[in-house]
Amino acid sequence: MKERKKKKELSILRVLKNSGTPLTSTKIAQELVAIGQEISERTVRLYLQEMEQDGLTVNSGKRGHTISEKGLDEFDSSNVIDKVGFLSAKIDTMTYQMNFDLNTASGKVVINVTLVEPGIFARSIPLVKKVYEKGYAMGHLLTFLGPGETLGYVTVPEGTIGIGTVCSITLNGVLLKHAIPTTSRFGGLLELQNGKPLRFAEIIMYDGTSIDPLEIFIRSGMTNYIDAVQTGNGRIGASFREFPAESREMVEHLDRKMKRIGLGGLLRIGMPGQSLLDIPVSEGRVGAIIIGGLNPVSIMEETGVRLYSRALAGLIDFRKLFHYEEMERRINEYL
Amino acid sequence: MKERKKKKELSILRVLKNSGTPLTSTKIAQELVAIGQEISERTVRLYLQEMEQDGLTVNSGKRGHTISEKGLDEFDSSNVIDKVGFLSAKIDTMTYQMNFDLNTASGKVVINVTLVEPGIFARSIPLVKKVYEKGYAMGHLLTFLGPGETLGYVTVPEGTIGIGTVCSITLNGVLLKHAIPTTSRFGGLLELQNGKPLRFAEIIMYDGTSIDPLEIFIRSGMTNYIDAVQTGNGRIGASFREFPAESREMVEHLDRKMKRIGLGGLLRIGMPGQSLLDIPVSEGRVGAIIIGGLNPVSIMEETGVRLYSRALAGLIDFRKLFHYEEMERRINEYL
Repeated sequence: MKERKKKKELSILRVLKNSGTPLTSTKIAQELVAIGQEISERTVRLYLQEMEQDGLTVNSGKRGHTISEKGLDEFDSSNVIDKVGFLSAKIDTMTYQMNFDLNTASGKVVINVTLVEPGIFARSIPLVKKVYEKGYAMGHLLTFLGPGETLGYVTVPEGTIGIGTVCSITLNGVLLKHAIPTTSRFGGLLELQNGKPLRFAEIIMYDGTSIDPLEIFIRSGMTNYIDAVQTGNGRIGASFREFPAESREMVEHLDRKMKRIGLGGLLRIGMPGQSLLDIPVSEGRVGAIIIGGLNPVSIMEETGVRLYSRALAGLIDFRKLFHYEEMERRINEYL
Repeated sequence: MKERKKKKELSILRVLKNSGTPLTSTKIAQELVAIGQEISERTVRLYLQEMEQDGLTVNSGKRGHTISEKGLDEFDSSNVIDKVGFLSAKIDTMTYQMNFDLNTASGKVVINVTLVEPGIFARSIPLVKKVYEKGYAMGHLLTFLGPGETLGYVTVPEGTIGIGTVCSITLNGVLLKHAIPTTSRFGGLLELQNGKPLRFAEIIMYDGTSIDPLEIFIRSGMTNYIDAVQTGNGRIGASFREFPAESREMVEHLDRKMKRIGLGGLLRIGMPGQSLLDIPVSEGRVGAIIIGGLNPVSIMEETGVRLYSRALAGLIDFRKLFHYEEMERRINEYL
């Protein structure tokens, strides 16, 4: 009982911590329900009363509640498993926070950030471009963040730039806006043969890791983007997701729409209840293979460049993204 | 039903494939039960009859059954999830295959293999030694495998040697021989402060990954052994395991006994039902932190050496292990 109570408290503290602005109990309850943690507004209100008495939160009246210094401490000293959190929880939170509208092509999308010296990046552009050209990237857009700019927990240090690639979780967000829930099962190393997906060589389940699987596969040097772009036989980052079987056509339709504005990421979609690349899928669901958002920059690791990449780094306005053909021109600003 | 049948078939094929020698149905049933897959000998026999008719296995009479070429093909084209297997299954299999007897200090232990050029290793010995000296290694033993030697699926190529470090799964094996079952929960990056475990910075659950978590944390350059050995503040590989609460004293006793012969790996053990380093543990169980077997060699990665390491590579006779103080002398044979 006590354990359960503490878990709910921590969930509320996490929502307040991530928000930055005061939140009402209604909003908190909505966010929790959205990430699969069923709770009523009334229950949230009862918790907040107690948490305020314990000094963990501050009630700013109509504006809502914020987390206190003591609340932050409490959160920091909580269970590493609750605190670090598994990727699946982070994915759900980001999916819910996204507000991109596919019809007007406006709002925010989820991006990854990779820190690199602008000179090194400039030299790598021909390789990075190839990953986009071959369709091993999430669409054909990206952005640059200058020194000092902050996104989520990442601030771009002096002397480097942040390469913002579109995170494939953006697809989950768009689908959710159309009432299609996505189950993100695992990230893996996808083996390609003649440019076609052959099988997953290694996999890490999203609900069993505190670090993004693709981030770590890339850093560990197990990918092979260079052969993938040159001969079509290599290993690239990809993930496996599931949708309700009835939504199959709608998913394909929305993906086509996304591709038209440069955001396509669906590599393959299975048939209801049938295995996809030998990955079993339950009755009533379809499996899908989604391209890894970090793929375009990750090819640099294979040329000996050590990158610092953070998947799911934060949200950015869609209008800040540009076509990969503009990379050469835009990098000049930072050289 | 069909799916379930196929799963059993694949389990049997896996046992036969891993064994190398013919196995009787009794032995196959034992191995499957030991890794938590309840099956009767009679059922195994029925499956084997059918599998022999399908050409997947070969019956060599009294000696037992082996896997055929067709069986190997069938196995290779099966579900990646069944085939690659999760680490937890691999851990269970290796634990069961180990036959080390603590009382006589004889039999086989599980080792990891790291491939490296002998010259590079010779230069790294002072650093590797420090990891042993600080107690960040699984005991104080290791072995060398010469070019051409094979262990499990790893054959040491010409021009390199295999450094065999004792895998921490050896502890599970010893405990199992004393009827104490181990649940291996996750591998992680353990943050040290003044040489003491502070918290897990990142974790990957063993039942959600096809690749050893420590292997990939090490390759990805997220460890910090150099500061760990120099100042006591760094990040090393470790894992989190659980035992039945009643076995707590016995585990400590056996670990002390293992330490005396150079195999100690228990860094910390918790109290029944209580969190350990903020990791919650259920009622009736105790948590424990076990040192990463690959730690001694992994420090080389931080000096720019790219290693090929395979955790849980295979079994080796305990008598082939030597004290780390002998490294300098023994490496000369390969230079």
